[in-house]
Amino acid sequence: MTHVVTFGEIMLRLNPPGHQRLVQATNFEASYAGGEANVAVSLACLGDQAAYVTTVPANALGDCAVNALRRYGVDTTQIRRGGNRLGAYFVEKGASQRSSTVLYDRTDSAVAMADPSTYDWDQILDDADWLHLSGITPALSARAAQACRDAARTAQRLGVTVSCDLNYRSRLWSREAASAFMAELAGDVDVLVANEEDPFDVFGIAAAGTDIEAGGLDQAGYDEVARALTERFGFTTVAITLRQSISASQNDWSGLIHRDGQTCFAPTYHLTIVDRVGGGDSFAAGLIHALRAGMTAQESIDFAVGASCLKHSIEHDFNLVSVSEVEALIHGTGSGRIRR
Amino acid sequence: MTHVVTFGEIMLRLNPPGHQRLVQATNFEASYAGGEANVAVSLACLGDQAAYVTTVPANALGDCAVNALRRYGVDTTQIRRGGNRLGAYFVEKGASQRSSTVLYDRTDSAVAMADPSTYDWDQILDDADWLHLSGITPALSARAAQACRDAARTAQRLGVTVSCDLNYRSRLWSREAASAFMAELAGDVDVLVANEEDPFDVFGIAAAGTDIEAGGLDQAGYDEVARALTERFGFTTVAITLRQSISASQNDWSGLIHRDGQTCFAPTYHLTIVDRVGGGDSFAAGLIHALRAGMTAQESIDFAVGASCLKHSIEHDFNLVSVSEVEALIHGTGSGRIRR
Amino acid sequence: MTHVVTFGEIMLRLNPPGHQRLVQATNFEASYAGGEANVAVSLACLGDQAAYVTTVPANALGDCAVNALRRYGVDTTQIRRGGNRLGAYFVEKGASQRSSTVLYDRTDSAVAMADPSTYDWDQILDDADWLHLSGITPALSARAAQACRDAARTAQRLGVTVSCDLNYRSRLWSREAASAFMAELAGDVDVLVANEEDPFDVFGIAAAGTDIEAGGLDQAGYDEVARALTERFGFTTVAITLRQSISASQNDWSGLIHRDGQTCFAPTYHLTIVDRVGGGDSFAAGLIHALRAGMTAQESIDFAVGASCLKHSIEHDFNLVSVSEVEALIHGTGSGRIRR
Amino acid sequence: MTHVVTFGEIMLRLNPPGHQRLVQATNFEASYAGGEANVAVSLACLGDQAAYVTTVPANALGDCAVNALRRYGVDTTQIRRGGNRLGAYFVEKGASQRSSTVLYDRTDSAVAMADPSTYDWDQILDDADWLHLSGITPALSARAAQACRDAARTAQRLGVTVSCDLNYRSRLWSREAASAFMAELAGDVDVLVANEEDPFDVFGIAAAGTDIEAGGLDQAGYDEVARALTERFGFTTVAITLRQSISASQNDWSGLIHRDGQTCFAPTYHLTIVDRVGGGDSFAAGLIHALRAGMTAQESIDFAVGASCLKHSIEHDFNLVSVSEVEALIHGTGSGRIRR
Amino acid sequence: MTHVVTFGEIMLRLNPPGHQRLVQATNFEASYAGGEANVAVSLACLGDQAAYVTTVPANALGDCAVNALRRYGVDTTQIRRGGNRLGAYFVEKGASQRSSTVLYDRTDSAVAMADPSTYDWDQILDDADWLHLSGITPALSARAAQACRDAARTAQRLGVTVSCDLNYRSRLWSREAASAFMAELAGDVDVLVANEEDPFDVFGIAAAGTDIEAGGLDQAGYDEVARALTERFGFTTVAITLRQSISASQNDWSGLIHRDGQTCFAPTYHLTIVDRVGGGDSFAAGLIHALRAGMTAQESIDFAVGASCLKHSIEHDFNLVSVSEVEALIHGTGSGRIRR
Amino acid sequence: MTHVVTFGEIMLRLNPPGHQRLVQATNFEASYAGGEANVAVSLACLGDQAAYVTTVPANALGDCAVNALRRYGVDTTQIRRGGNRLGAYFVEKGASQRSSTVLYDRTDSAVAMADPSTYDWDQILDDADWLHLSGITPALSARAAQACRDAARTAQRLGVTVSCDLNYRSRLWSREAASAFMAELAGDVDVLVANEEDPFDVFGIAAAGTDIEAGGLDQAGYDEVARALTERFGFTTVAITLRQSISASQNDWSGLIHRDGQTCFAPTYHLTIVDRVGGGDSFAAGLIHALRAGMTAQESIDFAVGASCLKHSIEHDFNLVSVSEVEALIHGTGSGRIRR
Repeated sequence: MTHVVTFGEIMLRLNPPGHQRLVQATNFEASYAGGEANVAVSLACLGDQAAYVTTVPANALGDCAVNALRRYGVDTTQIRRGGNRLGAYFVEKGASQRSSTVLYDRTDSAVAMADPSTYDWDQILDDADWLHLSGITPALSARAAQACRDAARTAQRLGVTVSCDLNYRSRLWSREAASAFMAELAGDVDVLVANEEDPFDVFGIAAAGTDIEAGGLDQAGYDEVARALTERFGFTTVAITLRQSISASQNDWSGLIHRDGQTCFAPTYHLTIVDRVGGGDSFAAGLIHALRAGMTAQESIDFAVGASCLKHSIEHDFNLVSVSEVEALIHGTGSGRIRR
Repeated sequence: MTHVVTFGEIMLRLNPPGHQRLVQATNFEASYAGGEANVAVSLACLGDQAAYVTTVPANALGDCAVNALRRYGVDTTQIRRGGNRLGAYFVEKGASQRSSTVLYDRTDSAVAMADPSTYDWDQILDDADWLHLSGITPALSARAAQACRDAARTAQRLGVTVSCDLNYRSRLWSREAASAFMAELAGDVDVLVANEEDPFDVFGIAAAGTDIEAGGLDQAGYDEVARALTERFGFTTVAITLRQSISASQNDWSGLIHRDGQTCFAPTYHLTIVDRVGGGDSFAAGLIHALRAGMTAQESIDFAVGASCLKHSIEHDFNLVSVSEVEALIHGTGSGRIRR
Repeated sequence: MTHVVTFGEIMLRLNPPGHQRLVQATNFEASYAGGEANVAVSLACLGDQAAYVTTVPANALGDCAVNALRRYGVDTTQIRRGGNRLGAYFVEKGASQRSSTVLYDRTDSAVAMADPSTYDWDQILDDADWLHLSGITPALSARAAQACRDAARTAQRLGVTVSCDLNYRSRLWSREAASAFMAELAGDVDVLVANEEDPFDVFGIAAAGTDIEAGGLDQAGYDEVARALTERFGFTTVAITLRQSISASQNDWSGLIHRDGQTCFAPTYHLTIVDRVGGGDSFAAGLIHALRAGMTAQESIDFAVGASCLKHSIEHDFNLVSVSEVEALIHGTGSGRIRR
Repeated sequence: MTHVVTFGEIMLRLNPPGHQRLVQATNFEASYAGGEANVAVSLACLGDQAAYVTTVPANALGDCAVNALRRYGVDTTQIRRGGNRLGAYFVEKGASQRSSTVLYDRTDSAVAMADPSTYDWDQILDDADWLHLSGITPALSARAAQACRDAARTAQRLGVTVSCDLNYRSRLWSREAASAFMAELAGDVDVLVANEEDPFDVFGIAAAGTDIEAGGLDQAGYDEVARALTERFGFTTVAITLRQSISASQNDWSGLIHRDGQTCFAPTYHLTIVDRVGGGDSFAAGLIHALRAGMTAQESIDFAVGASCLKHSIEHDFNLVSVSEVEALIHGTGSGRIRR
Repeated sequence: MTHVVTFGEIMLRLNPPGHQRLVQATNFEASYAGGEANVAVSLACLGDQAAYVTTVPANALGDCAVNALRRYGVDTTQIRRGGNRLGAYFVEKGASQRSSTVLYDRTDSAVAMADPSTYDWDQILDDADWLHLSGITPALSARAAQACRDAARTAQRLGVTVSCDLNYRSRLWSREAASAFMAELAGDVDVLVANEEDPFDVFGIAAAGTDIEAGGLDQAGYDEVARALTERFGFTTVAITLRQSISASQNDWSGLIHRDGQTCFAPTYHLTIVDRVGGGDSFAAGLIHALRAGMTAQESIDFAVGASCLKHSIEHDFNLVSVSEVEALIHGTGSGRIRR
Repeated sequence: MTHVVTFGEIMLRLNPPGHQRLVQATNFEASYAGGEANVAVSLACLGDQAAYVTTVPANALGDCAVNALRRYGVDTTQIRRGGNRLGAYFVEKGASQRSSTVLYDRTDSAVAMADPSTYDWDQILDDADWLHLSGITPALSARAAQACRDAARTAQRLGVTVSCDLNYRSRLWSREAASAFMAELAGDVDVLVANEEDPFDVFGIAAAGTDIEAGGLDQAGYDEVARALTERFGFTTVAITLRQSISASQNDWSGLIHRDGQTCFAPTYHLTIVDRVGGGDSFAAGLIHALRAGMTAQESIDFAVGASCLKHSIEHDFNLVSVSEVEALIHGTGSGRIRR
């Protein structure tokens, strides 16, 4: 049976309970997550066969990370053990006008230090039909960047579809470094995923009529962004999430897909936010699921936006929803009536 | 002193903390509740003398259930001990577009298995002026249905007012079974309580102009529903809750009472939801309190809607509010200013 | 280095987790706070040197109170040890239409019983440039009132600026007693802080066009209130918080400053409330910080309202925000986008 | 049906979770307890009809205290509402060589301030066959002492058996005050309960051969103590708990009863301590249960020591064990094998 | 690669935190476990390939159960989905003289109701070298008993080694029923596992010189028991755990193996108990690991007793220890010095 | 007023609650600690003026670390802000035969990377009378080792007493590296502290008659060790903790001091362990307190062993006990009777 391969980091996520700040916390909720790992788990929950590739240390925290993926049905047999430490990040959940914050402690993590030659991509991608990458992993180290390059190149050679989420992280690399690497990688990418800020941050492609900090998004402007990305890099599909942030507690959420010259927009959901970390990853997973299932462009963007709408109501990074729950949302009214 | 008798099940309620999903939970909040038990506790908090009649197993969980009622002042001396298990249900609190869900594990519970002849209704209803039942209990088993039938019949004979909440549960019985039984029971019911879905689900009486899933309610349509119920079954009073669900986090909440040919509506409250389970039960309790206290129809519906408005801000099923708190709401502005 | 001296009580604050009611609670979150102590901590977090003056008992709870202040950088070397008990208060966090409530258990606390002569204000205020008091402390006991009187008088003599938050608490004293004392104290106060209810409650100065319980505030009316206060008592600065309460979960929040004959209003923030206790104290601290930093009137009120806006998103009484976080809010869009 | 009446205080008990110290705690476990209240709850769990008499304030904390008793089946209909505050105490659970500590905050509590004339003992003791008091309540205030005196006197007049636990608390009154009052009260007491320290602390009657702090107890010495108490005051029954403290985690536990000139000792249990607060109260309750059930002296002391042995394995003050559990212990081996 | 197949139930385990009793609990720790499932997880942690066979309902609780096994590396691909409910059990952790208790709520669980023909044992046991069963599953229902019979019979036919833990549960079936079934099953069993009570309870084979309730065990007596079992049923190996219960907090723990006419005893460990549930299952898993690894009889019993010694220090049922941890214990001193 | 200066690291400590293993944990208790930081806090709790010198990053975790020290009264004004990360370590609390484990994640922490020239020891040690170091900090990096060397050298020049705890950590450096550095540092050390393993691990000085893993210690052997250390390095005082580990739950604890040619031993305490991490640090702090207070050698070792005995009953690393609590232990019986 064919499956999706995802490559990247998995970290220890620590967050104070509820809306506590770090300086108040006397205990942290502990989970294990990371951009691409979130995609793998979300796919497994949607019923797709998903394998995760990474390197974690041969200690109890490495065990914890593997267990977190296994628990939700991700194939972890390709995970390497080695290196000195598992990366970590601290999340402070914002509310009202106070932003959520993420504090990274991921320098020199096992996956960043791993020799790219330890991954035998021909073997790993055997039986796979899809490879997913993101812009976070190449930002970790030159070694990790090389592993991404190798993975994408091998996938293209084997006829495996490659998706990539731009996922620009300013704390990990500069715009210049990101632009240079992602432009090169784009040559091996079929499906590009981005949020409303990434195209400008990485490639300098701005959406007309939009001031992201101020909260307003202009759909026409993003249609142009998608077309510009397609033209410049030749992606078969471009999908962009559209988040309008009213406050840390309330967001509007939508997205678009551009394919075969057409752009389709999903409905906009007004979100009351439980945990927004992993929102973009759940969109990528929803999109991959939809495209692998042969949905139309409109069906695909509806599914991806619906799946990621639900993510915002779920604690921690993983989007633990089933296909039937996504379908109930997108074919229903979103009115959240109790099910009993 | 006269009092209210309520009959039904009491179960172990288990819910993950906060907005966690069941698949994430490593611990559950444990409380003990059930539709009719919620009414009894709410009445006790409102200062009414309330007795609960049920059967729970002679084990530690049965003790827990009895203690939960006793704690809030419900008379538990009529509770039978026997049977093999206490029913249980799992609640997942929804948020935003993700619905709350209830998963039942109540098959073959002590109250469902209890021989109806173990309840001596003449003795139980001695000194009572009110009996409250709901459509949940007869759905549990033929034995439980017979006990409801016996209770209502005895109450009518003794001149005890009988209220019944339709409370249709599709996971427990079919619409056909519900319709047949409730139509029969209706002959012994004085005060009918329902939510905005029950009249159609049980009796096929739809409100014109309303699409419940889409969230809009038409008051005129529900006036007609109340009149139709009254005409068909001869209730002295019909009261209906009117919930407009914007999302799992935001609802609008109101209700109507139909009595002596007149229909009165309460104001509508815009709810930020803490826990919506038990909302309808708190309405029934508020209504019974108001009617027993001799309030007018308008006062009664205002009190019942106000009491149940507050319920949505309270964790777990029980509506732990006093008369003075309800009155402060309905005579105030509902602006929620701090009290210190 | 000059610093701010604050005098008042510090208590044990106990609140059930989340939105639980007191009657449900099996455990309480424990923190240590009090109106003036909250100001001291907030100032320390904003980088101001702040010393707290109070009396706490020589037992483990007194240690806890001192530690809570020390932890956030407040100078506690002027705290006296003595008396029999630490005051306590219980907070029930409201939601939706259910108000938050505060239940005091502070009678005969150490600070209320302390002999005012134990405070050597000349020594305490040595090196200070600012003294902050509030209307809570004089309401505790005649002894505490005398200590406030002594402190303000000494400060005036030494040329230390005196600010005072009216902070009327009807459970502690009558309007008549408050009016008499605060009018006397006003003679030694330079900067008056109040909320939208205090001027009427204490001095009978009502804002035209405003019905506080109903939620609407009229800015022009409060301009008049500020002018009236200035005229009657000769304050150099009057600052008033303007809260419009939509529900216990949603408030609008703003404020004004009146100075040199001019009144400036801050923008209004729509708050989703995490914990509103201490909101006014964080405003006073923001104002003192701004005035000590030499900001203009408009800058000052923007800073004070911005700082206290953020407080409403933070658990417990203390406003644990930095200057850079306040500035990011008031110079940004308040859209709460994630920071990573 | 006859029943036991108990009179005393009920307080809010706050303890840090596990073995945390107060200075570490960020939350407290909240329960409601008190020496005599513990006896009432223990009796109710043992199947005796028990009523509690006290005064609690008319606020939410008073409600909590009443609910805590009602939950376990104690009759609370004789509880008065009034006064300003519910007493509180803080428990730090010791371990190893670190002692458990109790910090009282019970000054001017509702029961201490209550006018003794508000208790109509003739009415309260109507239908009662037993009254239980302890040396804690008269130590609270002259008013509370008078209420104890009235209760005991009335009980004697009505032929109700009176038991009293010496329960000396050095933080509440002096040895002289205790001695004077308890000697007077002894005239109305039938059954005296004490721990291994009380006879010396209150009446100066020391056990030969025993150094309590050093952990060793001499049975013969305590036989003499019991005889001396009987001779001096004419009690029909004297029962003394015998605790040998090895550390805060390990104790040896036994007891004796002296009756009709004979002294019987119970077996000694080696305890691993979960929570030792309330140990003596559970002994008193076990003893009262046994004596009311007509057990012999040996059976009674075995039952009382067995019941209180189990208490040390239970969190918080209340001894939540049934008669069958006590009997399983005293007729079994105490080897603690799992029951499934 | 060959692997171990285990068949049985997996349930929701609910226990109050720490040493709370059920009647005190306001939340339960939730885990998923069962005698044979515990063996599978323990084997996976020891590095053995382990597959679990069971039936769980097609709902969120069924998902939870599968996830719990997957998390620790158990192969769950042979788990059937169906039936109405997941069994549950409540554990109260004892301490000192108070026994731990287990309350079952497992009637009519999915695995008890499953048609035995749904398990295709030839396919399931393909590639397996070991099948493990226990006396719990056949006690659930005739259907479950038949499935056990089918599994063992098929395993014998395929040359797969069969181990079985007697695991007598008096709440599930009578001694007579157990004896009849287990005697029949014994014909297909190679390796018998039992605790110190099972041989007598099931087969009436008592150990001379031992009074289990009183806590003393006689090794010679158990040598005879092992020999008698071997003679009567022809097992190749018999292994028996030897628990001497001093209290619910302190046990002595050892075991024996009888093989090829020789009996070997392991050292005895003095246990301070964290959670004793699953102790026997961890012994069975340690034994299977040791035998599959080709250890000698003495090495095998040392390993099995060492592994299960560690289990008693671990929360919940699963024995989450590695081979290196077991070896460090059995080759070290067991003095528990810190590792850093 | 003179004070004690301590230099080293402070880290985030994360441990699962209770006895959970890391692979089970869904949340971690978060505290901030480190060998030398523990000494500083313990001294502050004993009433000594203590300042801590370290480098922490300029982020929220650095704030947390500073706050943790400030809370307990440590002077933090000499703490530098810089570097990229705060070190972290994970503690798994063992029980019975399962050892506690510590997993470090402290590579490249702020203090390890800090340029030693940023510490101006002449200024830092101004007004100090004591400097405490340990063998952990020089093991972190060459830079940290140089800072230790500079500190000790400066202290000697200024006449400040220098104490050093050998504290050998095999995960941080080799025995050879430790030996070389510590021998050099010893030239500037007056008071040497060690545990029962350090003298052999670092300097190859073994105690005759002792097998540490097996749990037995020979006092005479350690007398010889202390004499050998004194002879080789010329320390004025050598103090050694003597831990006999029976299990992870039970230890015997004592210590010796060698001074002026005499060796004194403290009594041995039988410990029931709550948290043993920080035990040695609390001994060093007790010793420093005692020596600074002018106690005799016997008084000093009694105080140091008594203080550290209590530490084992306290959660997390810090020894939060007062002088009066230590004195109550060493002048009492250690029987742990309740204090109320």
